[in-house]
Amino acid sequence: MSARPLRVVGRPVPRVDGLEKVTGRARYVTDLVLPGMAHARVMRSPYAHARVRRVDVTRARALTGVLAALSGAELTWCEPYYGPAYRDRPVLAIDVARYEGEPVAAVAAVDEATADAALDLIEVDYEPLPPVITLEEALAAGAPLVHTGKPQAGIFADLSTLRPEPGTNICHQFHFARGDSAGALASADLVLDDTYRFPPVQHYAMEPHAAVAVWSETDGLTIWASSQNPYSVRVELAKMFDVPLARIRVVVPHLGGGFGSKTYAKLEPLAAALARAAGRPVRLAASVAEAFQTVRRCAARVHVRVGFRRDGLLVAVECDADYDVGAYADIGPRVVQKATYTATGPYRVPHVELAARAVYTNTTPGGAFRGFGVPQLAWALESLVDAAADRLGRDPVELRRQNFLAHGEEFAPGDTPIDGKLEESLSRAAEAIGWTRASAADRGRGVAAMLKASVAPSVSEAIVRLHTDGSVSVLASAVEMGQGTRTVLAQIAAEVLCVPLARVTVVQPDTAVTPYDQTTSSSRSTTMTGRAVQVASEDVREQLLRITAEALGVATRDLTLDEGAVVAPARRLPYAEVLLLRFGMSGGELIGRGVIAPGRTAAPLGGSTPFWEMAVGAAEVSVDEETGAVRVERYVSVADVGRAVNPLLLEGQDEGGVVQGLGHTLLEEMLYADGHLLNGTLLLYRVPRADDAPPALECHFVENADGSGPFGAKGAGEGSLIPVSPAVANALARLTGVRLRDLPLTPERVWRALRARR
Amino acid sequence: MSARPLRVVGRPVPRVDGLEKVTGRARYVTDLVLPGMAHARVMRSPYAHARVRRVDVTRARALTGVLAALSGAELTWCEPYYGPAYRDRPVLAIDVARYEGEPVAAVAAVDEATADAALDLIEVDYEPLPPVITLEEALAAGAPLVHTGKPQAGIFADLSTLRPEPGTNICHQFHFARGDSAGALASADLVLDDTYRFPPVQHYAMEPHAAVAVWSETDGLTIWASSQNPYSVRVELAKMFDVPLARIRVVVPHLGGGFGSKTYAKLEPLAAALARAAGRPVRLAASVAEAFQTVRRCAARVHVRVGFRRDGLLVAVECDADYDVGAYADIGPRVVQKATYTATGPYRVPHVELAARAVYTNTTPGGAFRGFGVPQLAWALESLVDAAADRLGRDPVELRRQNFLAHGEEFAPGDTPIDGKLEESLSRAAEAIGWTRASAADRGRGVAAMLKASVAPSVSEAIVRLHTDGSVSVLASAVEMGQGTRTVLAQIAAEVLCVPLARVTVVQPDTAVTPYDQTTSSSRSTTMTGRAVQVASEDVREQLLRITAEALGVATRDLTLDEGAVVAPARRLPYAEVLLLRFGMSGGELIGRGVIAPGRTAAPLGGSTPFWEMAVGAAEVSVDEETGAVRVERYVSVADVGRAVNPLLLEGQDEGGVVQGLGHTLLEEMLYADGHLLNGTLLLYRVPRADDAPPALECHFVENADGSGPFGAKGAGEGSLIPVSPAVANALARLTGVRLRDLPLTPERVWRALRARR
Repeated sequence: MSARPLRVVGRPVPRVDGLEKVTGRARYVTDLVLPGMAHARVMRSPYAHARVRRVDVTRARALTGVLAALSGAELTWCEPYYGPAYRDRPVLAIDVARYEGEPVAAVAAVDEATADAALDLIEVDYEPLPPVITLEEALAAGAPLVHTGKPQAGIFADLSTLRPEPGTNICHQFHFARGDSAGALASADLVLDDTYRFPPVQHYAMEPHAAVAVWSETDGLTIWASSQNPYSVRVELAKMFDVPLARIRVVVPHLGGGFGSKTYAKLEPLAAALARAAGRPVRLAASVAEAFQTVRRCAARVHVRVGFRRDGLLVAVECDADYDVGAYADIGPRVVQKATYTATGPYRVPHVELAARAVYTNTTPGGAFRGFGVPQLAWALESLVDAAADRLGRDPVELRRQNFLAHGEEFAPGDTPIDGKLEESLSRAAEAIGWTRASAADRGRGVAAMLKASVAPSVSEAIVRLHTDGSVSVLASAVEMGQGTRTVLAQIAAEVLCVPLARVTVVQPDTAVTPYDQTTSSSRSTTMTGRAVQVASEDVREQLLRITAEALGVATRDLTLDEGAVVAPARRLPYAEVLLLRFGMSGGELIGRGVIAPGRTAAPLGGSTPFWEMAVGAAEVSVDEETGAVRVERYVSVADVGRAVNPLLLEGQDEGGVVQGLGHTLLEEMLYADGHLLNGTLLLYRVPRADDAPPALECHFVENADGSGPFGAKGAGEGSLIPVSPAVANALARLTGVRLRDLPLTPERVWRALRARR
Repeated sequence: MSARPLRVVGRPVPRVDGLEKVTGRARYVTDLVLPGMAHARVMRSPYAHARVRRVDVTRARALTGVLAALSGAELTWCEPYYGPAYRDRPVLAIDVARYEGEPVAAVAAVDEATADAALDLIEVDYEPLPPVITLEEALAAGAPLVHTGKPQAGIFADLSTLRPEPGTNICHQFHFARGDSAGALASADLVLDDTYRFPPVQHYAMEPHAAVAVWSETDGLTIWASSQNPYSVRVELAKMFDVPLARIRVVVPHLGGGFGSKTYAKLEPLAAALARAAGRPVRLAASVAEAFQTVRRCAARVHVRVGFRRDGLLVAVECDADYDVGAYADIGPRVVQKATYTATGPYRVPHVELAARAVYTNTTPGGAFRGFGVPQLAWALESLVDAAADRLGRDPVELRRQNFLAHGEEFAPGDTPIDGKLEESLSRAAEAIGWTRASAADRGRGVAAMLKASVAPSVSEAIVRLHTDGSVSVLASAVEMGQGTRTVLAQIAAEVLCVPLARVTVVQPDTAVTPYDQTTSSSRSTTMTGRAVQVASEDVREQLLRITAEALGVATRDLTLDEGAVVAPARRLPYAEVLLLRFGMSGGELIGRGVIAPGRTAAPLGGSTPFWEMAVGAAEVSVDEETGAVRVERYVSVADVGRAVNPLLLEGQDEGGVVQGLGHTLLEEMLYADGHLLNGTLLLYRVPRADDAPPALECHFVENADGSGPFGAKGAGEGSLIPVSPAVANALARLTGVRLRDLPLTPERVWRALRARR
């Protein structure tokens, strides 16, 4: 097969599920109706920390129309704890409630009104306990402990190195060092250090969490869930209910946004337990307020020290980060470990000392959120790099360029060499924002860069089926959550098999039938699942060639594919004819298989990242000195994506990343007072609106086809978010001379800083 | 791998879906609820034959709550004709209604009551035309023609040899000959000939036909259907609506009996058209009365002439059969062709002349029904063999034994050699019924034998997935319709992969995800789909062995599987450990693939049967001479199955076959008067009840592991039905001296025959 120009990959085709979504016809989990389906409601703790002395669901259970009423103490017929890092989170509070909003009891009834009424009949005796809400409170000597016992190990063997510190609120510690950072800092020409804070924020997916569960004697548990990683949910449920994996079917219909909030089990354990107790299908749908009580981004306090030589060379980075993982570990310890490993960002740093702690508090559990802990660190590091440029009298763009890791350079021994060109992204960003041109007097410009590893080791598998009419079904378990993966996977199969995009269907994830895929997160789907689809498609292609070669008595190397046909020197066989040769009748299909499993490596975290996500952001801001309101007038994001399989969708995703980044940069923070979340509702929590987007917003892509994914692609989608905060703050600092260290950059904070400057 | 005793295959394990079904929790198509689902009703022709001058659905469409109202003339936006042999059947009558009960218009409304009300608002002008109801009427010179135009070719290329006779009611003719039958008959010592009649009967599945259809912009058409061959339905729908196969998803949930009635498209085209017109999901569920108006068994008039030598050697068979295929061809022409090819039954016959016609009449279309045309012919041939034995003074058992085809003998050049031992089945049946012992004076005994080919060429494919905990998902598209195929496929995978049966799940057919399987009919699933599952499981097994061999540095031949582990000379690795070796993490799955596609051959019908279905029946009957009521006191069925993968299910299936055979033998017949079906309802049509089953009913199996299916199995399930009529009639003849030629053997017919004898 000689190389030929790409037909479908690289084209800005509209998303395959766009029409169904914009017409409102797409059906999400909460739209499902099953015969006899019951509706669930959850009673939640009003206290951030309390002993649960008694939960009495007797009266609720007796209410007409109630099909099940459960308390934590009654869950003796299943394993009631779950969690990916540690199984420290009960389906319903057992003995202790550890955060405001924690589920304490639940009911399922014939309708929602009855379920609501039943909740009022549940009696709970609480004994309030002193809570720890902030990192400072949690880490203080003699602090109340969120967890007192030793948690059970999580069921993901790959996370088995995680360990809590008994007798403290430390959920996990991570340490990584190379070289002699103390010595290097001692001899550096410039040492800067500072502490930066990143707020707890909510993912705020358009669709809150939802699950519909049903048990059958034949098939076990089927659960339709708003999940980003149905296979992780499956293994949790298998453990909880002690059933084989093959008897748990996790199905993901259309999903209304994830951003990490829908990784690992969330509502699924409770929905499954209620369905088991009720003996019929149960629908459990969270409200937006309940999503705030389910998971959030880990807040962080990050102390970073950087050392530079006078000539601008970065010689050492020390980082000490505390992440607030809330009341239950969720995947927080891994967030901390994984992010801290890349705390040095996209720079060549010979001397490194990195330490981080995941800390329990009596707040909503913190888990995965777009960026997976990196935004918290990049906020600190990229602010400090600009501060250093200022002190060194260097252009921040040039200082970064000087210290960037080069293409092919080692990040850490055993890990994947750098697979992109940071300097190219930086140049593109600088050019697009007009870095070298003078800005208006009331505008400031700033840049920031990022580097992030994807999850490793990592497995994706796919099955591709070619039907007799040359149409194609792709079976893969990447979750379409708005990022466009169904379209991208369809493009890849259409490209390899030379069929029009409209003849490819990508089946939605369903663990009973679509093969294993580790997770839809970590920007991995195009690279890993895409590669699996590519390999499976190539497997089908090889079959087409082999059948034709045998039938015509020619060599496969003399055959090519072209628009639904195998082309031999003197003949052209449509796929239908090739399949007729294979099957001797007008039926049958070719089945291709793709398995991508790089396995464990000698890299520091046990697996080499399948790709490095790299991006640069550049902001131009203005500030209202009267109010402190910062306005991002222009923003440029440049991501090194290897190849944009679909530039249109990629642009949409990166625009979304920038705007979401502006949320925690300017607007968003979950605010607590006396252990109570003050603004955990649709009304009070302020996410960016359309008119908060920069009037000029550009997303560019560096495409050198140097990624390990299909056609040289690599992951994207998190990179655009991460530089936003430091780019904006750097711009503000360059405009006003004021450097803020706490996010979000609210008008009040900015106004106070401007006022302090005067 | 050394041979080891079977662990799961061959065991009478309970059916995997039994509990769900007996508790009433199993959900069938009609139980489905989709958001916004509309309900359909069908207006049907009150005439057996009429010109449809006008169908006005305007008023129906205007009724509040009506979402769609369709007439045949309006179906210009799709291909309105369908049918597997010819596309001669309109979704809704166009210009002409060809049988009483033919759909003429249809509506979909918010509920069933509104849909019913809307039907009353539809105006239809009919011009009654003279109908042809019987074969005699249809074949008479100058008979009114059921079809006047040339039908479009069917879309199944394999059926492209079928041809109607223009200007007649002959839908297809078939002819097959070898030797010189005329000469052989002329020189035969005994020639007998006679005409036998077989009535039109209904399948009477517990669940009438049903379909729920929905269109989406992303996925195309999804249809949950009570179908025995979702892949055949898929290709019909793709043609009708001009969409790629990959954009048609036919899902088959639990199915409440098929017996052939649910092969090929039935309600699905109309449900899909209504859903398209309504712009939302549409549920179309037939009543029992409507099932009578959908499909039935082809009635037949069979003239057979047999020639024997004095010593009992069968020298010639001539057969001339007319099958009544009703108003539309459905698969009737293939029924006629396929059955007539084996009209000589299980006997060695040197001189053969076989001819058959499929004949259109103005009655419910005739299609596939358990036995696929063979019961009609066996009724004639096996009656005549007994009559010949009587004339030759031979024991009917011994006469059959003398003429049976031997194991390995050719049936026809190019076709599969005989793969079973007919004489062993016959001996077992004779022994079990006590053939050589004297019977009570008021009892008579009779035997009959059968031979039937399965569909060929034929394709089955399967995917088998091994999960990290050693549990297994089987993806295959054999439809579980009560015969137990889900259990059998699970047993096969469990056997090959050495896991407990409870760890295997067999996914229900869904053309979007479970791979191609031609059809669940023709007794083929255990042999063909089972073999595909076996091969796919072996593929997984090979992967397990290869991974382990590479990891341990041993040869695969030194490894065996044992209860969820790979066993090496000095180590035992549970599958979880093997998968950890493969994937480097606790995720991933092994995917196995099985494709069974023997292809076309030189056999007379273009494909060699994958196996021969062979069985013998023996009946002991009594008769009430006052009323003519025949009572089957004992019945023995012996089927040559190669290996009974599940003897319990097989016994159940063959018991069902015998009882269903007693239906058309003693009770069942669709009765017409003036073109109107008189007894097409639950109340009036008499199928066997539990107390109609013989007090002593035994099903035995010959198991020589000589089948081409998994572990030597071959197909079963039709064989037990086919000998019932002749075995009972032969017993009656031996008891009373009276031979009847028309089924069913109603008391009136028997009484009249007994009376005529005196």
